[in-house]
Amino acid sequence: MNIPAGQPGDNCPFCRTEITEKSFCASAHFKAFYNIAPILPGHSLIIPITHYQSLLDLPDPELSEMILFARKVTKVLISVFKCDGFDWTIQDGISAGQTVPHLHMHIIPRKPLDMPESNDWYSKIPENEQKMLDSQHRERLSDEDYAAVTASLAGASASIIE
Amino acid sequence: MNIPAGQPGDNCPFCRTEITEKSFCASAHFKAFYNIAPILPGHSLIIPITHYQSLLDLPDPELSEMILFARKVTKVLISVFKCDGFDWTIQDGISAGQTVPHLHMHIIPRKPLDMPESNDWYSKIPENEQKMLDSQHRERLSDEDYAAVTASLAGASASIIE
Repeated sequence: MNIPAGQPGDNCPFCRTEITEKSFCASAHFKAFYNIAPILPGHSLIIPITHYQSLLDLPDPELSEMILFARKVTKVLISVFKCDGFDWTIQDGISAGQTVPHLHMHIIPRKPLDMPESNDWYSKIPENEQKMLDSQHRERLSDEDYAAVTASLAGASASIIE
Repeated sequence: MNIPAGQPGDNCPFCRTEITEKSFCASAHFKAFYNIAPILPGHSLIIPITHYQSLLDLPDPELSEMILFARKVTKVLISVFKCDGFDWTIQDGISAGQTVPHLHMHIIPRKPLDMPESNDWYSKIPENEQKMLDSQHRERLSDEDYAAVTASLAGASASIIE
């Protein structure tokens, strides 16, 4: 799992075209796509287009670009899903719980009482990532639902992200 | 709790000098300080010096500064605490679990097997924030231990952060 920066592993799902072609918006070096097994409505991911396992390896300008892009995407998600807050998290390294060896940032837009306890989403991330990786898992969105939400977000992004 | 950006609330703990004077390093607009009730060794926080409740209100250059500063601090923490990974999280808004109404980013350096399950730290954040806010809580670091780790990190930061 220790893949050098910029060298995608054969088994890296976030380097596969079938994932990256489904992004709803992009910046120069990053893409945003909807989570196939969202923890809450709006749950999306930001990934670098180039394969980096760790955020520590990103050049400074790309790290700045990532965070500014993530904020724009967050604003789109808050607007589309009518939320008033959001959680961001990055797990960097196997010891930190990173299960996909390609840097990814979770964005989860939030609204009051969307979960029994506001922090419950944390514990669902490992299960969610397993669902993303396991194409046979039944709780993933259908292809039709996934395409519909991606199209909706692409439309919303076009008017907000210059 | 809905405090306008730039206007500290009377009850904002992260605007109090007793917190901000204990930071172990700073950039132009941000400070890093050690968590008084760390979830794991090295658990630290990044906050803007100016009172902002939400990351959405930060000017673009400050958001870039924050993330580049956070990465430098993360490298210091990984070095000092001999870790090989890290978790970052931001809870923005009451619905997202934000308990202190001043933007803050958690940095938790990680090492293999530091917790029974790598994601267990998530569930400890609300309890941790309660400990930070409750000066009577017994599980906080002693003043002496807190001062010692802060001095150690200030020394390590001086050689890494220009």
